[in-house]
Amino acid sequence: MTRRVLVTGVAGFIGGALATRLACEADVVGIDNFFNSDPSRLPEGISFIEGDCQDPRVYTAIDGKFDVIYHVAGQASAAVSYDDPVYDLQTNSQSTLALLDQMNRWECTRLIYASTMSVYGVQPDRPISEQDSCVPASFYGVGKIASEHYLRLYAELGINSTALRLFNVYGPGQNLENLRQGMVSIYLAQALKCGHIEVKGSPKRYRDFTYIDDVVDAFLQCSENSVAYGKIYNVGTGRRMTVEALIAQINSVLNGDITVSYHDETSGDQFGIFADASLIYQDVGWCSKVAVEEGLQMMVEWAKTTQF
Amino acid sequence: MTRRVLVTGVAGFIGGALATRLACEADVVGIDNFFNSDPSRLPEGISFIEGDCQDPRVYTAIDGKFDVIYHVAGQASAAVSYDDPVYDLQTNSQSTLALLDQMNRWECTRLIYASTMSVYGVQPDRPISEQDSCVPASFYGVGKIASEHYLRLYAELGINSTALRLFNVYGPGQNLENLRQGMVSIYLAQALKCGHIEVKGSPKRYRDFTYIDDVVDAFLQCSENSVAYGKIYNVGTGRRMTVEALIAQINSVLNGDITVSYHDETSGDQFGIFADASLIYQDVGWCSKVAVEEGLQMMVEWAKTTQF
Repeated sequence: MTRRVLVTGVAGFIGGALATRLACEADVVGIDNFFNSDPSRLPEGISFIEGDCQDPRVYTAIDGKFDVIYHVAGQASAAVSYDDPVYDLQTNSQSTLALLDQMNRWECTRLIYASTMSVYGVQPDRPISEQDSCVPASFYGVGKIASEHYLRLYAELGINSTALRLFNVYGPGQNLENLRQGMVSIYLAQALKCGHIEVKGSPKRYRDFTYIDDVVDAFLQCSENSVAYGKIYNVGTGRRMTVEALIAQINSVLNGDITVSYHDETSGDQFGIFADASLIYQDVGWCSKVAVEEGLQMMVEWAKTTQF
Repeated sequence: MTRRVLVTGVAGFIGGALATRLACEADVVGIDNFFNSDPSRLPEGISFIEGDCQDPRVYTAIDGKFDVIYHVAGQASAAVSYDDPVYDLQTNSQSTLALLDQMNRWECTRLIYASTMSVYGVQPDRPISEQDSCVPASFYGVGKIASEHYLRLYAELGINSTALRLFNVYGPGQNLENLRQGMVSIYLAQALKCGHIEVKGSPKRYRDFTYIDDVVDAFLQCSENSVAYGKIYNVGTGRRMTVEALIAQINSVLNGDITVSYHDETSGDQFGIFADASLIYQDVGWCSKVAVEEGLQMMVEWAKTTQF
């Protein structure tokens, strides 16, 4: 029998890529509220329900026979979480509670949750593992860590969940019109549009840039593996890359003459973080396959095919 | 000039005791939604607004010139948080965000927050300090730790806050009609009403029972002391007392022949916890003054004067 899955945030960058891949082999139902997206970004070949995942009413019309639920919905920018912290809480924490509650009603027991490296906050300059302390530096990070706690509590109520702490995801499909979310997409959009990149924060900041196809692999590899039940995994390449190195790479890929200016940092920004992703490799065999050089090349080729 | 303060949850046990003490020396404005209370429990001599602290509209009619805000409102039972986790999130986390946002509008910069020992979750059998890990074992604890994170983030936005992690508070004024909240009040109410105590969970569980007047002292001593800005303090006696020792003490105070039966534990219950309260003593000179034997005596005398 064909598997049946639910993807929340299906019109977003990550939810959309995940649903597109899943649609090849499963019946996919998607939910989105178009908070940060629009219907043109919906993947093909899925059933779609428009609504807020924090509102229990969105679930009532859905046949809940799902093999797996992927909860990817939620405002996804630390900086934007400062605009309306209450909305951020609702979209990133209340949505998880409402969905977990509904899962018990549906008797659906498998959830994969899109968490974030933002739960860690300020950290020392070394690979950060799931055992490190979580002191989120943004409202966004607080909402995500609260959701991870909820997953842990719902384990006792019969839900087998896995939380993936995603490190800076980038790649084809990322929203190039949104200049407040996604470090790679923000810089690339500026470079493509006007040959100039305005950086908010230090060039010495560093991240772990993870390609979208690798991230989708992580979701899929965890779905079917019971060793991942109740676990939290870092999903990152393990490679430390500075903002200035990223920009040099963008410049190189564009064969360009990009200019750069530096400005004050935005609220809630972490100075630097990169992943120790050994646990997910050990448990389910996942590791990233796409190097930034290659991923950026593919992203640029994709960007040139869009109407951007 | 007379000081002016706001107390949220003013019809509750702790908010009411705090407001009653404050009303002797300050103009007190109180808010409550009577979720777990009723108008008969409002302290005398205060101005009162009925409403939900998680709803920003409750604040719009209030003159915001407050010297200190005491945020005590919120559903306060780990067990009850399992009935409606979304409501718990709204009352314990969203309320804090809504109030902090309003404080910036009001240009009010001092907040004392009623947090809880429930943020710690399962812990080893030794005094627990503020440096220990927080892995909440209930939705209630998750909502409170999220609020503590919010206070930390709002420090950068100009709010000087102090979070008090209250350990099992008991004493006169506690709601003896509510048999799901407050270990001492639940047992005492049963003992007074029918001479029999039904305990949910092990007699070997242990707590740190802290008298209401001591807790009010902690709020007041922190209010005026800038060393408490940005701090989190345990508020407990530092004394480890088992459930069976508590019940023996209740029996002794009632000169009674109380019978006891033991049943399964409730969701979200911690097996045992007691405070290392040295930090608040070191910083603001607070320590508990009332021993359980004395506090229970005073609570029983009070209970006998009520219509209970």
